[in-house]
Amino acid sequence: MNEKTFFEHLLKVIEHYRSGQRSGKFLDYHSPAELKRILDLERPEKTGDWTEILHWIETYLAYSVKTDHPAFLNRMWGGANLPSIVGELIAALTNASACTFESAPVSTILERYMIDQMLDLVGFVQGEGQMTTGSSNANMIAMMAARNNANHSVKQSGLFGQQKLFAFVSADAHYSMDKAANILGIGTDQLIKVPLDRYGAMEPDALASAIGRVLVSGGLPFFVAATAGTTVRGAYDPIEPLLDLRHEYGFWLHVDGAWGGAAVLSTTLKQKFLAGLQGADSFTCDFHKMLGASLMCNVLLINNRSHALRATLSAGDGSYLFRDEHNAETEDLGVASLQCGRRVDSLKWFLDWKFFGRQGLACRVERNLELCEYAESWVNESTELEMVVPRTSFNVCFRFKVPQEKSNSFNLTLRNRLYQEGRSLVGIAYIDGDVAMRLLAANSSAGKTDIDTFFNNVLQTGRDLLK
Amino acid sequence: MNEKTFFEHLLKVIEHYRSGQRSGKFLDYHSPAELKRILDLERPEKTGDWTEILHWIETYLAYSVKTDHPAFLNRMWGGANLPSIVGELIAALTNASACTFESAPVSTILERYMIDQMLDLVGFVQGEGQMTTGSSNANMIAMMAARNNANHSVKQSGLFGQQKLFAFVSADAHYSMDKAANILGIGTDQLIKVPLDRYGAMEPDALASAIGRVLVSGGLPFFVAATAGTTVRGAYDPIEPLLDLRHEYGFWLHVDGAWGGAAVLSTTLKQKFLAGLQGADSFTCDFHKMLGASLMCNVLLINNRSHALRATLSAGDGSYLFRDEHNAETEDLGVASLQCGRRVDSLKWFLDWKFFGRQGLACRVERNLELCEYAESWVNESTELEMVVPRTSFNVCFRFKVPQEKSNSFNLTLRNRLYQEGRSLVGIAYIDGDVAMRLLAANSSAGKTDIDTFFNNVLQTGRDLLK
Repeated sequence: MNEKTFFEHLLKVIEHYRSGQRSGKFLDYHSPAELKRILDLERPEKTGDWTEILHWIETYLAYSVKTDHPAFLNRMWGGANLPSIVGELIAALTNASACTFESAPVSTILERYMIDQMLDLVGFVQGEGQMTTGSSNANMIAMMAARNNANHSVKQSGLFGQQKLFAFVSADAHYSMDKAANILGIGTDQLIKVPLDRYGAMEPDALASAIGRVLVSGGLPFFVAATAGTTVRGAYDPIEPLLDLRHEYGFWLHVDGAWGGAAVLSTTLKQKFLAGLQGADSFTCDFHKMLGASLMCNVLLINNRSHALRATLSAGDGSYLFRDEHNAETEDLGVASLQCGRRVDSLKWFLDWKFFGRQGLACRVERNLELCEYAESWVNESTELEMVVPRTSFNVCFRFKVPQEKSNSFNLTLRNRLYQEGRSLVGIAYIDGDVAMRLLAANSSAGKTDIDTFFNNVLQTGRDLLK
Repeated sequence: MNEKTFFEHLLKVIEHYRSGQRSGKFLDYHSPAELKRILDLERPEKTGDWTEILHWIETYLAYSVKTDHPAFLNRMWGGANLPSIVGELIAALTNASACTFESAPVSTILERYMIDQMLDLVGFVQGEGQMTTGSSNANMIAMMAARNNANHSVKQSGLFGQQKLFAFVSADAHYSMDKAANILGIGTDQLIKVPLDRYGAMEPDALASAIGRVLVSGGLPFFVAATAGTTVRGAYDPIEPLLDLRHEYGFWLHVDGAWGGAAVLSTTLKQKFLAGLQGADSFTCDFHKMLGASLMCNVLLINNRSHALRATLSAGDGSYLFRDEHNAETEDLGVASLQCGRRVDSLKWFLDWKFFGRQGLACRVERNLELCEYAESWVNESTELEMVVPRTSFNVCFRFKVPQEKSNSFNLTLRNRLYQEGRSLVGIAYIDGDVAMRLLAANSSAGKTDIDTFFNNVLQTGRDLLK
């Protein structure tokens, strides 16, 4: 089989996959041990054989999760936008590294353009930004920018013998904050988890008290991260009261909008969930979550500082790559990046942006919220289900009602059975020790009838389990 | 235009690109300002219009660097293997995150399989590994594993008030080491640059002296990185004498094989360049460099410790994602990753592996070395060219001979003219203040006749400049 014939076959495989990806089971489940046997990875190689490549691709597709299936209501994404998928293919085809203008001229301009679009949307002025490999890394870079901004000597001198730095996040913040405190040498003990209100949002008064205690102990409060859409409950920490505290204490205020930051696309939802955002010091948002870009597609934005990333990350190597790195106007995006080689992520985002438009993306977020309201009404109207916590935004945390002592194991079993039967995939989360099923409607393939199907599956399987 | 018609057109665009990518100019060059005007990014969006998407893709391709062009002899990669490109497309199509077995069963098994293959090749026992977004991050994770291994309290307590930690690299090590020392809170002052021998390799005696000075000052030498193929000269730091020093001082010995680690594929070149590798504590290698996988495709391997990555990076969130993260046998790769969401990188690597085979990849590395010998002979046989440093492996650092006081500006001009005319792209590097053109032959499209064409271009343009 030559390259041309291979591509013709590949196109058929892709068409077949796409036409079937929203029907049937979302997964042909096998345990790790069974799957290893089925995959037969030691099958002898046949050098240069395109038929073999087709075999491996068909095998890959046959046992993968159909993330675009309307029963995939699990994670913070589902499927991927087709313009974005095409952008990935073109990026792979040309295989440029987005670290210098020289070798990646178009993607460099696209990345800067999209960052400018986002700075405008968020309302940051004299800002800058970069695309990163996801919000975990974006949160870490933001904490690092704050660290090096609070103490300019750290970059050279390290943290040995320095005043202890303290970071503050909500008790429900994403685990990437713990990871960042570890990576950055700050230590997880210096990451203070601030208590929550009854809806899961950070309590500003509790933050003020925690800062006070750190100051008394001689520590330096340098960083506060508000979560815009917590992972489990979907709570939005209130930005405006945190801005008041920042005025008083001078910390860096970051907003982790990995999940709920997508609300920035919609004028009404931005006002509802993100009031005050334009006053924060930094903000991150994943386009690969609610907005459907293919993985990974993230932006980190900085407010009021056009050289913070460079001051934080630039490493001082003019010997071979960045010959004008001390010139802030250089076009080379790699100067202020965690990575040296960088995959082109801008093209897919640009293609999505042009294909759907800001309005199209805003509608997607608004529709997502409506689906969550609809799902919540399903729970509230059923005598067999109950909410574990009230819904405040995009997360619907519920469970099948059984006596409390059996609830966790029952709901885990129920949820795992739905998964292994390839019928529905919904997240699971612990809230104060209680197991909740966490339904997210980020999958743009899913509509109200799919929510109906999901809950009917849950009820039917739950009733079966009770027998 | 519907999706099916769009795909048919897209296939033609791809065929057209692939058939033309190795001929003509490698780039239709324009300055950043000109290119911005040409791209016309504010062109009004046409929502849902596939014709527009084709327009953007054709524009992107028209002004991008053809990295697979045989005149692209610049960076440490060139073009991308077609099986790998197809792997990227399929990964984008299915859009799974490689963080849990649950949502990415096949890619999880593929990643573990490929890591095992690599552990075998390298000769690590009781080891582990992970795919990362490149060697910059892999080097940082290795330094972090060493940091947390040297002082187990750092993860929680941070570096404040701890004994000063010192890391050692060669004076020519990659700038990601400086970046890592900054990120990890160690500080670039505590990253000691060890002097080089005349070929650019780390001097073991100089390392021993540097360690001695740190010990006298009360510091703790915790990490030494040997570079296997330095960025500019291609030097291999000698691993075996460093192992002897490790025996004496107990540091963590990492081998940064981002570029030259590919020699591990070839039995003869492994012996020639990487003797002793199996005794190191960690090793990283980019498959997207000499081996031609599409960006990003890296592996970090750890020796003799099957839980080091988990101890280093696991962040302690059992609330929603990793419910059995404390079980070392869990299949979830995200537990010990820098990222939360992870793009599937294993598929492309696996497809390359099966298509080319270990032997095919070894031949590629060996052929690359032959091309470099051939290029060196071009320089040595020409009266108008000279080597700036002797070639020891895959890097050919040379210049056009002009009087010393004019050499840097002349060679810069010469090289940039070749770039802007779209005729040849070769790297530039500073060696002890001297500008050298750095020819790398990682591009599998390039053969001896392309090396001839390149040097004829250099000579012709150099002579023109002298007129």
